[in-house]
Amino acid sequence: MAETRYTSFQVTMPEPWIAHVEINRPEKLNALSPDVWQELRTVFDRLSTDPSVRSVVFSGAGEKAFSVGIDLKWVSKEGSPFVPRPDEYVDPARRAAALRQFGIEFQESINSIEKCGKPVICVLHGFALGVTADFCSAADIRICSKDTIFCVKEVDIGIASDVGILARLPKVVGSYTWVKDVTMTGRNFGADEAHRVGFVSSVFPTKEDALVEGFRIARNLSEKSPVAVQTVKHFLDYSRDRTVADGLQYQLAYNTAVVQTNDVPEAIKALVSKKKPTFEKL
Amino acid sequence: MAETRYTSFQVTMPEPWIAHVEINRPEKLNALSPDVWQELRTVFDRLSTDPSVRSVVFSGAGEKAFSVGIDLKWVSKEGSPFVPRPDEYVDPARRAAALRQFGIEFQESINSIEKCGKPVICVLHGFALGVTADFCSAADIRICSKDTIFCVKEVDIGIASDVGILARLPKVVGSYTWVKDVTMTGRNFGADEAHRVGFVSSVFPTKEDALVEGFRIARNLSEKSPVAVQTVKHFLDYSRDRTVADGLQYQLAYNTAVVQTNDVPEAIKALVSKKKPTFEKL
Amino acid sequence: MAETRYTSFQVTMPEPWIAHVEINRPEKLNALSPDVWQELRTVFDRLSTDPSVRSVVFSGAGEKAFSVGIDLKWVSKEGSPFVPRPDEYVDPARRAAALRQFGIEFQESINSIEKCGKPVICVLHGFALGVTADFCSAADIRICSKDTIFCVKEVDIGIASDVGILARLPKVVGSYTWVKDVTMTGRNFGADEAHRVGFVSSVFPTKEDALVEGFRIARNLSEKSPVAVQTVKHFLDYSRDRTVADGLQYQLAYNTAVVQTNDVPEAIKALVSKKKPTFEKL
Amino acid sequence: MAETRYTSFQVTMPEPWIAHVEINRPEKLNALSPDVWQELRTVFDRLSTDPSVRSVVFSGAGEKAFSVGIDLKWVSKEGSPFVPRPDEYVDPARRAAALRQFGIEFQESINSIEKCGKPVICVLHGFALGVTADFCSAADIRICSKDTIFCVKEVDIGIASDVGILARLPKVVGSYTWVKDVTMTGRNFGADEAHRVGFVSSVFPTKEDALVEGFRIARNLSEKSPVAVQTVKHFLDYSRDRTVADGLQYQLAYNTAVVQTNDVPEAIKALVSKKKPTFEKL
Amino acid sequence: MAETRYTSFQVTMPEPWIAHVEINRPEKLNALSPDVWQELRTVFDRLSTDPSVRSVVFSGAGEKAFSVGIDLKWVSKEGSPFVPRPDEYVDPARRAAALRQFGIEFQESINSIEKCGKPVICVLHGFALGVTADFCSAADIRICSKDTIFCVKEVDIGIASDVGILARLPKVVGSYTWVKDVTMTGRNFGADEAHRVGFVSSVFPTKEDALVEGFRIARNLSEKSPVAVQTVKHFLDYSRDRTVADGLQYQLAYNTAVVQTNDVPEAIKALVSKKKPTFEKL
Amino acid sequence: MAETRYTSFQVTMPEPWIAHVEINRPEKLNALSPDVWQELRTVFDRLSTDPSVRSVVFSGAGEKAFSVGIDLKWVSKEGSPFVPRPDEYVDPARRAAALRQFGIEFQESINSIEKCGKPVICVLHGFALGVTADFCSAADIRICSKDTIFCVKEVDIGIASDVGILARLPKVVGSYTWVKDVTMTGRNFGADEAHRVGFVSSVFPTKEDALVEGFRIARNLSEKSPVAVQTVKHFLDYSRDRTVADGLQYQLAYNTAVVQTNDVPEAIKALVSKKKPTFEKL
Repeated sequence: MAETRYTSFQVTMPEPWIAHVEINRPEKLNALSPDVWQELRTVFDRLSTDPSVRSVVFSGAGEKAFSVGIDLKWVSKEGSPFVPRPDEYVDPARRAAALRQFGIEFQESINSIEKCGKPVICVLHGFALGVTADFCSAADIRICSKDTIFCVKEVDIGIASDVGILARLPKVVGSYTWVKDVTMTGRNFGADEAHRVGFVSSVFPTKEDALVEGFRIARNLSEKSPVAVQTVKHFLDYSRDRTVADGLQYQLAYNTAVVQTNDVPEAIKALVSKKKPTFEKL
Repeated sequence: MAETRYTSFQVTMPEPWIAHVEINRPEKLNALSPDVWQELRTVFDRLSTDPSVRSVVFSGAGEKAFSVGIDLKWVSKEGSPFVPRPDEYVDPARRAAALRQFGIEFQESINSIEKCGKPVICVLHGFALGVTADFCSAADIRICSKDTIFCVKEVDIGIASDVGILARLPKVVGSYTWVKDVTMTGRNFGADEAHRVGFVSSVFPTKEDALVEGFRIARNLSEKSPVAVQTVKHFLDYSRDRTVADGLQYQLAYNTAVVQTNDVPEAIKALVSKKKPTFEKL
Repeated sequence: MAETRYTSFQVTMPEPWIAHVEINRPEKLNALSPDVWQELRTVFDRLSTDPSVRSVVFSGAGEKAFSVGIDLKWVSKEGSPFVPRPDEYVDPARRAAALRQFGIEFQESINSIEKCGKPVICVLHGFALGVTADFCSAADIRICSKDTIFCVKEVDIGIASDVGILARLPKVVGSYTWVKDVTMTGRNFGADEAHRVGFVSSVFPTKEDALVEGFRIARNLSEKSPVAVQTVKHFLDYSRDRTVADGLQYQLAYNTAVVQTNDVPEAIKALVSKKKPTFEKL
Repeated sequence: MAETRYTSFQVTMPEPWIAHVEINRPEKLNALSPDVWQELRTVFDRLSTDPSVRSVVFSGAGEKAFSVGIDLKWVSKEGSPFVPRPDEYVDPARRAAALRQFGIEFQESINSIEKCGKPVICVLHGFALGVTADFCSAADIRICSKDTIFCVKEVDIGIASDVGILARLPKVVGSYTWVKDVTMTGRNFGADEAHRVGFVSSVFPTKEDALVEGFRIARNLSEKSPVAVQTVKHFLDYSRDRTVADGLQYQLAYNTAVVQTNDVPEAIKALVSKKKPTFEKL
Repeated sequence: MAETRYTSFQVTMPEPWIAHVEINRPEKLNALSPDVWQELRTVFDRLSTDPSVRSVVFSGAGEKAFSVGIDLKWVSKEGSPFVPRPDEYVDPARRAAALRQFGIEFQESINSIEKCGKPVICVLHGFALGVTADFCSAADIRICSKDTIFCVKEVDIGIASDVGILARLPKVVGSYTWVKDVTMTGRNFGADEAHRVGFVSSVFPTKEDALVEGFRIARNLSEKSPVAVQTVKHFLDYSRDRTVADGLQYQLAYNTAVVQTNDVPEAIKALVSKKKPTFEKL
Repeated sequence: MAETRYTSFQVTMPEPWIAHVEINRPEKLNALSPDVWQELRTVFDRLSTDPSVRSVVFSGAGEKAFSVGIDLKWVSKEGSPFVPRPDEYVDPARRAAALRQFGIEFQESINSIEKCGKPVICVLHGFALGVTADFCSAADIRICSKDTIFCVKEVDIGIASDVGILARLPKVVGSYTWVKDVTMTGRNFGADEAHRVGFVSSVFPTKEDALVEGFRIARNLSEKSPVAVQTVKHFLDYSRDRTVADGLQYQLAYNTAVVQTNDVPEAIKALVSKKKPTFEKL
């Protein structure tokens, strides 16, 4: 991966196959504004098609926050999609068209994490507020440090989020009463509660410990057949949303191509001989 | 809300914006008969469109039971939908038509809780048996006292419930093996098990404690933008049942209207200035 | 049930109404090859229509393993669907047709457990590796002994499973981050973790204890109306995959026939008189 | 059927089993205002559950029009849902709530024709403009007289209809280019074009001829088993919207009750003996 | 294809690649009883996997009828699924179980035509009554002779068909008013009407002419790549029932395997050089 | 619209509000290669968001052809997605990944016509072969000249199209037997047959006549409220693919925003006063 410079992100390859994406506005507690999420989409779209990348660790720079969520200053400024200028009448249908365009772009930014062909391990710490939940619920694996504070805050600015969390959360954790509790009250919840309900897979004492684990998982995934790993991700997201019968039919159609790969005999040989397999780029 | 008198329910407004719905047949342990659930639908349909109500606490009167479920006396009486008179032959297709009519009305009664525009916080205690599970699984948030005893009992009268629990339970808790265990065996389970699997959000020492918490949540929700809170409820129920992509598309279509509300700048202003916002009736 | 002899299974009726299906290749740690899963389908299809059977306990013979999963020797042999003979070019579309045929048969074998009309209680112990997860996730209730070791291993032979686990797991447990963790890393997990995430309902000290509990549940289910129990199973599997509204509509259509059964008054009478009911064969 | 007096409709039973519903505002060319469609719903809901009715003929009183569609005077009056009072600012989210309530009621009125258990034969003549298309596309069979003039006019008052035609028309005729042509241009089309594209089944010289045919069909349907006729209607509407596999599964579930009817042996006996069968009320 | 002897069918290979399936009970006007449709399934399942077959012509032996539909004698006999013995009470839930089993087998027989991997050209003539419509609507291409008389007759024996026609007809022709007309009235319609509404593709003066055309089409299809032809059939049936987006996603997944076939360069070379291509068996 | 120069297209605005898109490679009979369809997407994406455009006429330059379809020279060249270089082995899973990427881009190009917010009127003439059908079936309205020759030719190069026609055709015309006939045989069909089955709305003597009509429709649509016209297009495409109930629910959600537009009172006023309305840009 040729390293690209981004304004709000730092994207590095600390070791082969593994990209590290960091939201890099620590002085703003990694607050998210349109510039940030437009760039985010570019970041993940590129990683998705870069054959030198097999897994992605996604975290926030600085000690205090993964992200405090949407940049409240931007939202509350006159002229934002949510605060029209008082002197300016806009026809509601034409304002709706602008909101729709804005919403589609925002959704596509967040979807780029889920659509990224490679597994995305989200390592959370500190503040993980508001729209952060929309972003991190689109990742594959979520782990965090003990000090992480989560919330689904949109309700407190008068909005029901339409960019991810309310579509994904009922499918990401099992307890629907808990889902409604946190999305309607907007209250904070901590790492242990997130773990208990299954929103994160595991909790670590510090951000550093969590990052170490994030890279350990990423490394593990990078050593496997990229065909297999990326297909597992795709199959799960496809099937999560559909009947078991439709899931099975699609998986079989898809697999008749990819299972012909040479990675299968290669992986079997390695497993039997207990040696490390090597897989071609994908 | 003009207070209406009901036969089997007591509906009050103990504080502004919050309705308290109590099943009010404590001498029968709040057993449910057709009269009761027909009235229930009226109760929730009215609350749904009453602009002076922003959240609903739903509980059972008396110390012993939220409800013991369907009134067994009524079910076992000759002439009920389940026990035809022995001397009377009814053509199976015509009996099916009567059963369908009966079932649709029963389903609509229970659905009225889910369809109620306002969040419904169900506070359970004591016996919460049989068809109670159908009712409370249609509420948004479930909390209970430590002495609550639950079961999904229909199987023990030879029936697979068709009025809610078997359609909702796989989406309300995450452990499918547990869902099949309790719905097929009909066995009792307590508050702690209900909490562990995520059927209730929290457990309190007594009914009174649970009610206090129910009202605390209700009050919290009542102080937020009713546009936002009611839209969150609707989005979650819509998306729970559909693909993430369909959820996102619908949410965006819906939001292009409601996000134009003045509640958004009002809420933002309040958040920034740390004052309490005030929202118009909805 | 006339007892049939099978090659890889032992199917017995240790007590009335209850069939015990054991994978019976303990010397191979109950490894699964095409012969085994073809036979498995015959086993479950027969149990499904046998009116003398009301519930099924499904376990693995021997002390060490429920099953170590797919027979790696068979998979890695030249000529298996996954390792074509090196000297033999097969047109990819024609190889796809063969893979599709193979996959459909394998899927149908596993689906036969879910489609079996009778509740299937899967009692796991020891190794429960690889494709075992595909099989046991199609059962209704899963319990296990403390020593059980699970994994979803296909990824390590370069394959994303298309025979069940990736279609069912997102619907069988609630924590999606956990689902992605175990299916992408292929790592082992134990009985306690399986219990914590809700993959199994309960954990017992030994295989024997787990079997005792399996039979206790099976006996309990066998004493209920088979109409009710089998309909509960069907309703849950139907509704798990669909909107609540579609679930309710189908359940009502289905119930207008089965609720006319005499089992209902019989069960009610028994419940009221606290005697054991007797139900006709189904 | 006890004959009920309606304001905008005349509902009669000119012969046994057949109800005749006429829009009865000939002086207004049967224009539709909220009063009319609220009453329409009452009319069809009653017919749906009235066991003395087996089929419905639906037409418009007077010589000039089935209906000219929505009452333009009502629409264009200040205070209608579409023309807010100029002096009155309504918050867009609150106006949306009112529009939603209005839309749901309007949709339910039109849906009552499709949901009516009995077959509805719509006999059109003269002007059949605008929202008429929404209404008549919800009927089962459409026939018309040669002078009928149709259009889907909403687009010309700046609205994309959300009450039926744009949801049903793609499923009611086969030519999608024609569907888009008439719904986007709002142009008139005549009886012959309606017949050629399959929107009506047949065309007759005069309104009287068309009515005679409408009653002939209604009579024919009334002589058949009401179980069979009503189930055919329901099955087609269910299956039109779903996969063939889902249609077949639902039909079978539904039929296991209704096929047990005595109407089947009765009908077979009649067919074999070439006598007229008699069927119980449903 | 080793020619197999069937009781009610004659299956021949009058020329390479083309199987001719004839219902062969001309003395009974090819009436269909359970024996016949069970055998039908065997016929089509075998053709589906027989690599020497590339297309199927499906017709009825004798001059008078493709088939008069279900064997009325069998249906009206006591003990058929539709006419229980008068002296025998069967519990409605248990009768429902038997009806369900019967229905599933009947559905699977008819579905075997649609699921047959090879294109099935149905050549109709003479009587094509009742359940014939269920069968022929599952074929790919329908042509007929001028004397063909069709009807959807089940309604006249008190039944709404659940074996195919009511699930497929709304998707097989475009005019929904016509679909409801013929399925609710059970009336006859002729070849020209069938052609006008698009139920058949073309009409020929005699059965012989229609058969000649059927074989011409079959020959044409047999000369093309079997990979392409069979995939077209599968894609259309898959997409007919789903959103355009889901159709496109599935088609692409499926094609990534089959498009790698050598048939593509072979076909292109032939097209460019204007020679006949030759394709491997599939 | 600032006029942009394209390589393979000519895009002009011959009159206000109306864009004319011409495939502009008449010397190649407008054959389509990847360059062409990548550019096509740019063309339609821009038109979709250009507020000065209200409708689009889409035709082919030159006298002989709308388009002869895919550029056979490109397809048959070694190194195309369909003809790998003989000396180069590519792992089937990696070739599948390349095919998938290629297919997604091709699909998105064609989808850009359907997703274009503005109505697209496709005016066909001369040869309209092969992949032309995929393109034109994504337009809203299709009209053609008498000399147009259509076919769905992919099957003759060994491919089942996965870029549009097999997903859309079953929803674009009503006769499923005709759909299977033309897509499996790849045969030519003319303007009259296309009109009879409803694939085109009307047929004109010459290309010029058809263009005149195309512009007449475009002009008509441009004079209406763009809010209404664009919403009609969106509602129809949404509802075509879904249940009537889902269509109605989505339409209502969407309309609560757009119906608040000032275009409605403006249009009503114009209709009542019989003057031409003027609508703001959208």
